[in-house]
Amino acid sequence: MAVFSSITHLGSNPPLIGFVLRPTTVPRDTYKNIKETGVFTVNHIHSQIIEDAHHTSAKYPREVSEFSQTQLEEEYLDDFYAPYIKGAKIRMGCRFLNEYEIKENDTLLLVSEIEHIYISDTNIQQEDGWLSLSNADTVTINGLDGYAKTELLERFSYARPKTK
Amino acid sequence: MAVFSSITHLGSNPPLIGFVLRPTTVPRDTYKNIKETGVFTVNHIHSQIIEDAHHTSAKYPREVSEFSQTQLEEEYLDDFYAPYIKGAKIRMGCRFLNEYEIKENDTLLLVSEIEHIYISDTNIQQEDGWLSLSNADTVTINGLDGYAKTELLERFSYARPKTK
Repeated sequence: MAVFSSITHLGSNPPLIGFVLRPTTVPRDTYKNIKETGVFTVNHIHSQIIEDAHHTSAKYPREVSEFSQTQLEEEYLDDFYAPYIKGAKIRMGCRFLNEYEIKENDTLLLVSEIEHIYISDTNIQQEDGWLSLSNADTVTINGLDGYAKTELLERFSYARPKTK
Repeated sequence: MAVFSSITHLGSNPPLIGFVLRPTTVPRDTYKNIKETGVFTVNHIHSQIIEDAHHTSAKYPREVSEFSQTQLEEEYLDDFYAPYIKGAKIRMGCRFLNEYEIKENDTLLLVSEIEHIYISDTNIQQEDGWLSLSNADTVTINGLDGYAKTELLERFSYARPKTK
């Protein structure tokens, strides 16, 4: 379990995400677990759990589960091999597909497919399918150690060229 | 000029960012310009310009500059070849280094180095170097079309294992 700020949408069909691992600074256990099991979960951090979530970035020995060091609890859903965070409001079960070595700084881009998605509250998903991350209380990260809440300003329609 | 939500920190030494281009959906002009000139700028969007910023995602013919279709103005700084957005509060001048083809969905990861950074207001950068993106009024995107402001909840110190 660790905090990742670099998870990026790569495409929606198939539903792919990418994130970057820095082998020299990020716990290698995360990488090793993903490669061994082929699966992992992504759990949105909401404001009530930022302190515990941040603490998961501490470097414990591999035999120590971060679950034992915080109030966060694991939960298994639909026979998926990797545990989710209990109470997280948006959760995704992901399967590792491929990795790319970024030569410029010896990092790895891991490409994975979203297989499951769980949304906890009825006020998060809107009629058109869009998820309100403000309503989910999902925090956004600022740098390495700042956590901020968000407030939606506006949603725009699909942008089309102006006509005279 | 276009809106990108997928710009990701790849590493700080050297200062590298990555972003993903979807050749089938994103204007190819962005890619063509970067490959031809080797440089581009990244300009944070603040709340006052979200409408114009969003409009830059409209697909205009290549000969039409998005600057002509919005109130956004270009500004050249320190002889850098690519223009910045005038008034943007955090701006980065970047040089293209390499690209990686993501086979799983035919997208491209572009890796670039930050050569210049400009911070407009004195209340953005803190004493330890950290940038307050809330103070910069930088918006965060929610999905494809939602723009949200942020409010810092907390900054934590570097996480270390708990001792008994």
